[in-house]
This record gives sequence, structure tokens and C-alpha cells, in this order.
Amino acid sequence: MLKIALGQMEIIPGRPDVNTAAMLQMMNAARQQGADMIIFPEMSVPGYLLGDTWEQSAFLRDCEYYVQQLINGTSSGIIAMFGSVAVDWNKRNNDGRVRKYNAFFTAQSGKLLGGENYPYPFRIKTLLPNYREFDDDRHFYSTQKLAVELGIPVAELLRPIQVRTVHGPLSVGCILCEDGWYDDYAVKPAELLAANHPLDLLVNISSSPFTLGKNNKRNRLFSRQARKLGVPVLYVNNVGIQNNGKTVYTFDGCSTVYNRAGAVIAYCPAFTASMPVIDLDTAGGGMSRPAVAVPDDSGIDTVCQAVRYGTVAFLRSIGLERVVIGLSGGIDSSLAAALYAHILPPAQVLLVNMPSQHNSSTTKDLAAILASRLGCPYTVIPIQEAVDLTTRQIHQAELKATGQFQSLTLSPFMLENVQARDRSSRILAALAAAFGGGFTCNANKSELTVGYATLYGDQSGCLAALADLWKHQVYALAQYFNEEVYRDEIIPRGIFTLPPSAELSPDHAVDEGKGDPIIYPYHDYLFRAFVERWDRATPEDLLTWYLAGTLETEIGCQSGLSQRLFPGPAEFITDLERWWKLYTGMAVAKRIQAPPVLAVSRRVFGFDHREAQNGSYFTAKYLELKKQLLG
Amino acid sequence: MLKIALGQMEIIPGRPDVNTAAMLQMMNAARQQGADMIIFPEMSVPGYLLGDTWEQSAFLRDCEYYVQQLINGTSSGIIAMFGSVAVDWNKRNNDGRVRKYNAFFTAQSGKLLGGENYPYPFRIKTLLPNYREFDDDRHFYSTQKLAVELGIPVAELLRPIQVRTVHGPLSVGCILCEDGWYDDYAVKPAELLAANHPLDLLVNISSSPFTLGKNNKRNRLFSRQARKLGVPVLYVNNVGIQNNGKTVYTFDGCSTVYNRAGAVIAYCPAFTASMPVIDLDTAGGGMSRPAVAVPDDSGIDTVCQAVRYGTVAFLRSIGLERVVIGLSGGIDSSLAAALYAHILPPAQVLLVNMPSQHNSSTTKDLAAILASRLGCPYTVIPIQEAVDLTTRQIHQAELKATGQFQSLTLSPFMLENVQARDRSSRILAALAAAFGGGFTCNANKSELTVGYATLYGDQSGCLAALADLWKHQVYALAQYFNEEVYRDEIIPRGIFTLPPSAELSPDHAVDEGKGDPIIYPYHDYLFRAFVERWDRATPEDLLTWYLAGTLETEIGCQSGLSQRLFPGPAEFITDLERWWKLYTGMAVAKRIQAPPVLAVSRRVFGFDHREAQNGSYFTAKYLELKKQLLG
Repeated sequence: MLKIALGQMEIIPGRPDVNTAAMLQMMNAARQQGADMIIFPEMSVPGYLLGDTWEQSAFLRDCEYYVQQLINGTSSGIIAMFGSVAVDWNKRNNDGRVRKYNAFFTAQSGKLLGGENYPYPFRIKTLLPNYREFDDDRHFYSTQKLAVELGIPVAELLRPIQVRTVHGPLSVGCILCEDGWYDDYAVKPAELLAANHPLDLLVNISSSPFTLGKNNKRNRLFSRQARKLGVPVLYVNNVGIQNNGKTVYTFDGCSTVYNRAGAVIAYCPAFTASMPVIDLDTAGGGMSRPAVAVPDDSGIDTVCQAVRYGTVAFLRSIGLERVVIGLSGGIDSSLAAALYAHILPPAQVLLVNMPSQHNSSTTKDLAAILASRLGCPYTVIPIQEAVDLTTRQIHQAELKATGQFQSLTLSPFMLENVQARDRSSRILAALAAAFGGGFTCNANKSELTVGYATLYGDQSGCLAALADLWKHQVYALAQYFNEEVYRDEIIPRGIFTLPPSAELSPDHAVDEGKGDPIIYPYHDYLFRAFVERWDRATPEDLLTWYLAGTLETEIGCQSGLSQRLFPGPAEFITDLERWWKLYTGMAVAKRIQAPPVLAVSRRVFGFDHREAQNGSYFTAKYLELKKQLLG
Repeated sequence: MLKIALGQMEIIPGRPDVNTAAMLQMMNAARQQGADMIIFPEMSVPGYLLGDTWEQSAFLRDCEYYVQQLINGTSSGIIAMFGSVAVDWNKRNNDGRVRKYNAFFTAQSGKLLGGENYPYPFRIKTLLPNYREFDDDRHFYSTQKLAVELGIPVAELLRPIQVRTVHGPLSVGCILCEDGWYDDYAVKPAELLAANHPLDLLVNISSSPFTLGKNNKRNRLFSRQARKLGVPVLYVNNVGIQNNGKTVYTFDGCSTVYNRAGAVIAYCPAFTASMPVIDLDTAGGGMSRPAVAVPDDSGIDTVCQAVRYGTVAFLRSIGLERVVIGLSGGIDSSLAAALYAHILPPAQVLLVNMPSQHNSSTTKDLAAILASRLGCPYTVIPIQEAVDLTTRQIHQAELKATGQFQSLTLSPFMLENVQARDRSSRILAALAAAFGGGFTCNANKSELTVGYATLYGDQSGCLAALADLWKHQVYALAQYFNEEVYRDEIIPRGIFTLPPSAELSPDHAVDEGKGDPIIYPYHDYLFRAFVERWDRATPEDLLTWYLAGTLETEIGCQSGLSQRLFPGPAEFITDLERWWKLYTGMAVAKRIQAPPVLAVSRRVFGFDHREAQNGSYFTAKYLELKKQLLG
């Protein structure tokens, strides 16, 4: 039996020093537990999401320095597999910068293995993902490009590494992350490796960001792969968070071992650093261990786990120990309060209600009840005086130009935004500074999609932890916090039953049942179709489905809803165009200046959803359909 | 002589309808001027920078519809070359989405040419740039990938298109943008085309964003290419602006014809839509036309042209006709005022001075003088009352928690940010709404680099038109506006001689010569080395240069400056670390929420400079060097 340690570590992005120290420590620990081999994740030395730090030669040299330390560390007798950047200082990338590879290193007895039948003593990532948040192709040279440069077939660059173990020699296929997700690629690395060489083991080192339900998919895929190739597959992923500025990703780990029949025989828990040492009968394809069941990762419990984990890690990463939350009495800020009060000592979460003349005593009372149940410091800072001052200053401003005077007026709509900005930029920002922390952005994904939030107002903050959740997920998560996290009605029932409302004008009077113009049971799903569908839905698609009677099935909302909401096509079209124009118009401008969003879904605003401020567009076919309908 | 129209059009990104209408009109006009052929830029139908709009199947079908209209349009007798997306609905990209190419279409007599010896009746872009702001590889399939998929050499997919003209057949090499910039690629499309086929003409259709000095480089490169291949090169680029959210690019056009000896024989003016019809003796390689001189594009006059053009086009693109500018009496906001008052009617530019107790009468007077010289509406709205109210509200807030009371205090530093946010988020935003416009962000690149600006304060606004200019470029451009644009001292002399200062505290008292902690004649260049160097400079590089005595040469500042500023290495290091920590620390957090920046340089903050909020890092070698020096 080969004893293999799965090094599911927390990687700190951009910190080769810290990561290397942790890895050396884990190598020692694994050795002490009798492990023959330890496997670390992809880019375990530098981290994966580093932006353009890869363009700093000094940083690359630094990574080389730490890689050498790890190689030296294998003198103790353990075999180490790990990921880092590899640099060929004599060659260029396509951008003219020095040649870089996303590399898989295998070190034994103080030396790198695998150089005897390959251009380098390491393996490189073949498939470089360049979609969603992935950017590999920007910095790293692929096997395909190297093959073209060397004038050889790609298959010649896919060779296993021969490892000597106390149990005999082992032929290990060494691949990186996307190399195992090859369905849509012309080159299929794992299959080429297995087709042309005897293989005892396929090792996939990954740095694979969490999205809801991804581990289920991963298990289906890698299980099929192990079965097809007839070898055990070892998948090692990191935990922690990494970001690319606009988007913050959690990494769930979930490192897993599959036997040659595709059954899971071991896995690490999600979102937890761990280092199990697994006995693997490599000769028998891992068949001597019993199969184990893997928990589902697509439910609200996983959402809760990811959001908590990501928020904790983000606060730690920027050194924030105290937060201020504007508590309106609505569901979003209530959930934010429940979340932060759970992950920080309640005394470090300052809750503040900031009423203007439009806030009802209903919501003010609910906010106070929630604050008292959470045991957080709580205060009320009214904004009406400042709003009145702003109004007066704008109305009294004398615009002098060549002897003429003009005056200006703030409309009721403008005053809504004045209130929102007053709360965030005037009160929350100052309060956060004085409290020694940051303030949170409590926006949800529905609001962010159509810009139903004020720039420098409720759209601001240091992290938008809930902005990848649709409104119905916000409700579900709030309920989960009550039922499963606090096991008590911490968020008062009244907050769940209240109509969602911004309370910025008499049109938003919650006690009269008034509130947001977004009808969440329908628009949540409409917006999701805009944003998250693999083939993004546009008005053309939506109108086509509406006419075909398949709209609800396509977007996944309650059946019959569009019939109930819209008397006819004219009303359906008015609603559709209103939100499409906002989504592709003003909301883009707002998102450009939005805080970082914590990722949960397969399509997060920020770096995962690239967008230009180009305004709204309707296709020729849409306009024709509309004309046919409305004459 | 072949009569060729260079279709240097303004492309509206995301508007196939508008672009196609413009192209059809230009085809008619060109035909009327006797042109045999018209050449439009790359992606002339859909536009180039569209974010993930490429993931909308309805949009792709729409592009196909408009491409067909253009093909039909060639029935009039003109040959049309143009760019658009081409879709192969039966194949997949690597991300699993439908196969898309960045394609070069050649149409004649209502049909597409070139399908007889190629998988498609169009040509596709071979080199897909994936650096700086470019993202081609995210959406489009390359010639290399297609060659691997088809199992044939890349060269077989590089074939000219045979065009029948009244002057006989013509073999045209059809390439797209990056295909002509192949120095760092293993595949060299233009050379392969010419090596394997007789070629009469090389046509490069581009959508090439402007950066300072790029046209100089383009001319050197394409001139060398024409000479090497021995054929005339026609380069057609668009004008207009396109953006990817965080970064706004101008397109300078500068479409150019080179004869086979590499001399420029015709070019279109920069930043101007135009459609010259050129007589080209294709048989003689274009040698019958005299060479012409091309103006340099690296000076402050070009900066001025680009900034004006980009700002005008951006305002038009978002439908903004009125702006509000906070006028402090400092150089940045003065330049902003001079810029906007020049491109909009002065009555549509509202200038506002917002003094607190810390603003000097010197700057207040200078602001008033500038406003009066510009003839813009001007007003003064003091913020002290609101700042005092905020202070009082924070200080008086009672933080209740489990019976205890806490109170909070705003420090003088916090009050600096309170002032900045009060100006922007409370006054400017409300004023802009009431005035019916937006407000400008006047930040420069030095400030943005180290976050010397307040979030939701002076870092906010709808466009940061000057944020790709270092402080010394701001001064130079301000002087250029006085001397060459207004030809008058519109920006008072006193604004140039004042110490740069935020005037947010007694420490910033300009009349006592106090001001910003940034020493621009040195730090402008230090920061530029962090951001703009091809190999990004880090503390390790900078300290190494400092010790070697080559610092000033390497970063390009005045020689001897570091000696004068820093008594010794300890002071040099303290300064270096201070700014590096800000650049890679808090400034990243601020830039994530910064407004769109108008691009001028080869490295713009936003989408061109990818960064993660990972905190500061010092390499092992830097720490060792520092230890050696400081003990």
C-alpha cells in the first residue's frame, strides 16, 4: 500500500513565503505519519488569482527560490508533488514577456523528476481556461503552443512521470485542473496520457473555485474519467479565498480519491484545511478500499457554508475585525446582520438604523428587535436633518454665469438617492472609520442586475457578501440562519412577511403594502435568464418563449406567472424592455463602481461577467416580433 | 489603377444595426466615387469590445443577419471587405459555447469569396491577443486551434483570397489586426501567406485602440512588413470609442497604405471618420504614388487630442450633455474644467467650489477667476455645516449593547475623508442630478496609483478622463490648453505655481507651502515604474537600482533626485515601502470601485491592469538586501 497525503491546504494568494513555510511543515507532518508521498494543489506556492503580478520578474524569481526550498525539503525522504509557476528565461510568451508555465513539480530526494523525456523537469498545464473568471491563457504558455513551437505533436508532450517508491516504480499522469475538464477541447490530456503510456495513477492538482453544485459535477466527471482510463484518480484542491478584484472566490477543497472503477474511496471535507494520509493499493487500482458517499453541494446549506467561509476569510485577508451595518428592517440587511454577528463577536458588529421621514415605525421597530436579539451594539442616527440641509443648499445655490442666475430643484426621485447616499457615504463611512472597521454592502443579485440601488449609497461598502444571491435565495438563507444556525427566531418573522421596500418615498410605504417595483417571484428568474444561462437570454429569446407558452419552463419560475402578471403581450413587452434597458444600461455603470462580490453562482457580477458600458440593444428579429404583436 | 476606398468609420460597439446602415451608405458613396473596393475595419458590424455579449446567441444571429445585408449590398458592383463575428453553429468553443471566429469577410456581386480552398467562405483571425485590455481568446477560436482540430498544419489555413477586378485578378492576403504584430508568436501569419502563395496585396483590418506613440510603432512595423514581403500593405482601423467597463479606449483610425518598399503613400487623419479613395497600382506594388510624411503621435498635442476626443465620445455614448465639476483651485480640477468647458457649451458645465474651514482664500479666489474666464455657471456651496453635523451625529451616537454605552470619535484624519465624501456624494451627486448631468472625477494617475483619494469622495464620478495621466502630464496638458487650445491664460498662472494640496487639514495649508505627501517629480516616475514598465518594477528592482546608482536612469526621472530627497538608504527604503504598500494595498480596494478611466498610456488602471486585493508582498531577495543595508 502506498501512503499518500492529500495536502488540502489553505493557499494565501501572492504569498510564496507563507505558502512554502506551510508546505514544508505539512511535508514533515506527513513524513511523521509515514506518508510516502504528499500532493499539494495547483499553484500552491504563489497562489492562483494574482492579477498581473505575473508580470513582475522579481516575483517570478522569488517563486523559483521557494520552489527550490520545497525540492530541498524532499531530502527527508518524502515525494512531493506541487504546483507553481515555472519560468523559461530564454523564451518569450506571445505578449513578449518571459515564458511562464502553470507547472506541476514532482520532487524526490532533493531533485525534480520527469526531465528525461520532456523539455523541462516538470509538467505543464495543457488546457488553459479562458472563460468566466479564468485568465490562465493571459500569462501561461500551453502544451499546444509549445508543441507548435517545437514542431512536434501535442501527444509527445503528454508523458507520465516515473516515481520510485518503496513498493516499486509508479507511472503517474500529472495534470492540472482544466486538463481534467476536456470535454469541449480538441486535445484531451488525460486520455492521451493513458492511451500512449502505461499509467498507475492520474493525479490532478487543482485550484478550483467553488460554485454551487460544482463538486457534484466534478465527481460525475472524474468518476467517469477514472472508469474510462481504468486508473485511480487523485484530485487535490486548495481551500481559502482568492479574488480578482471585483470578484471573491471561495475554494472548497473537496480533494477526492477515485478508484479505477470510478468510485469515491476518500475525500476531504469542504472548506476545511486537512491532510488525510490515504493507503492506496496502486497495484489493485484502489479497489481494496470501500466506496464512500459524498454529500450533495447544491443546497442552501452549502450556500450558507460558502458565504460564511468566504466572508470570514475576506475579513481576515484585509485585516478587518469590526463592521458597521446599516439596518433598515428589511430582509437583506437583516441577513447581513445575522451573518456578521455570527462570524464576528457581536460587540464588533455595529448596527445602525438611519431613518428619514419615510421610514415606518414597523421597520424601525423590527430593526431594533433584531439588533437586541443579536446582542450587537445598536444606534439610531436620523438623516432627515442632513437631507434637508442638502436640499436647502442645492435649492439656494446661485448659479452665476455672465450676470445671469439660475436655480436648481431636487425632484422627489432625486431625493430618494440623496437619502441613500447620505446613509452610506456620510453616516456609514464615517461611523465605520470611527468604529475602526468597514461597512457592508447588503445588496442582492436582483438589485445589482438592474441597478436598483444608489451609487455611493446602498451599493457601496467593502464587500457585497450577498450580491450573488437572488432575492429568493436571500429569504431562504435568512430562514436557514434562523432554523439551522441560530436555531431561534433571531430575524423576526415580520421581516419575512413585510413587502420588500426601499422606504425612500411615500410610494414605498410598507404599511400600505407598497414597496419595490421588482416582483421577485417572477423577476428573480427573468434576471437569472439574462445573467446566468449558458446561452444568455435576450428579449428576442424571452419574447419567443412567451409566445410559445414555454417562458416559465425556460426561466424556471412558477408556472402561469406571466399570464397572471401581464394582461397581454403589450404589458409583457413593456416590463421586459424596462428591465433589459436597466440591466444593460444604468446598471452597468453602477456595477463598474460596485464593491467586490462574493461568488456563489456560476455567473457572478464582476470579473466573471465581463461587460461594456454600451447601452441597450434589441435584435432585428426581436423588433420584428414586437411589431407583429403590437402592430 | 485599382480604386480602393479606406472605410475609416466610427464603429458603435454593440450596434450591428447602426454600423451596417453606415457601411451600406459608405459603400454607395464609394461606388459613386468610382471605387472598385471598400475596406472596413475589424469587427465593423458588431464592434470589438462587447464584454460577454458574445454569449448571446440572439446577438450572434443578429450579426449574421446584418452581414448578409452587406453581402447583398455588393450587388451594386463594389467589392467589400469587412469584419464581423462568424459562427459555426455545428461546432463548439473550448468553453462549450457555440464556435465563434473573429472573421474577415470579402464579398463581391452578392456572394462571399474565398470558400473554395478553405473550410469557410471567410478568413479568421490567427493571433488572438490576450494581454493588456485584449480578450479575443475568451470568445474566438484561432487558426491554430482549428488546425489542431482538423489535423492539418496551420499554414494550410493561411490562404489568400482571389478577387476579380476590372484590372484583372488580385491575390489578397486577408489578415486581422494582431496577425500583423507577430514578432513574439511562433506562427507568423503574414509571412506564411506570402511564403506559400503569390500575393498582390496584404490587407490588415484592425480595431486597434489608441495608446500614446502606438501609431509611430505601427508604422515602423508595417513598413518593415511591406518591405520584407514585397507587397503593398493596407491597414484599415476604426475611430470612435469602445470600453470594457473599467477602461475607455479611443480608436485613432490612422488607416495607412504602404507601398511594397514600405513607404507610407496614404493615410487617414487620426480620430476622424473618413473615406479616402486611393488609386493603387497593384501591379507596380504601389510605387507610382509619392511617399508622404506621417505626423508623430507621442507628444502632449496627441494626449490632448485623445483626451478631448475620448471625453466627447464618452459623454455622447452615455447621453450626457451637462456636467458638474468640483473646482478646488488646484491643477487637476482646473484642467478638467478647461477640458469640459471646451467640449461642451460653457453653459452646460456647472463649476462649484465647496470650501470647508481648511480651504484658503488663495485657492477659492483662483477657482472663481478660472470659472469667470471659462464663462461657466459657477456657485459656491460650503460644506462646513454638514461636516459639523456629521461630526456631531457620530460623536453623539449612543452605542447600546446589553446595557452598556460606548461613544465614538472622528480623528482629524477621518475628518479629511468626511470632507471629501461630503463634497462628492452629498453635494456633487445631488447637484449633478438637479443640473441634469453627471459629475466628473478629476483624479490623476499618481493619486490613483497609491489611493491618494477618498472612496465615495474625490475618487467618484462618471468618468475619470485624466486618470491615465501622471501629475507632470496634467501640468503639461493644462499648459497646452492655455497655450494651444484657448491661446490665453485661461487657467491662472497661480494654479500652476501653487503647491499641490488636498486642503483637508491644517497640514495642507497651501499658503504656508504645505501640501500633498507625494513629491511628484520623483514619485510620478517611481509609480510609473510600478505600473507601466513592461517588466513591472518591484521594491527588489528599485532597491537594486538605487544601490547600483542607476535608479534615475531606470525610472526616467531627473538625475540625482534620490540623493537629494533621501539622506541614506533607510529613508529611501521607508519611502519606497510606504508607497508600495499603498499601491498594492488600500489603493487596490479603492480602484475596484473607481469610475471608468480614459486610456492614454500603455497600461491603464482597470481592465488593462488586472489586480487582486491580495495585500503587499516583499520578495525574499528584497528582504535580504534590506537587511544587509539596515542591519
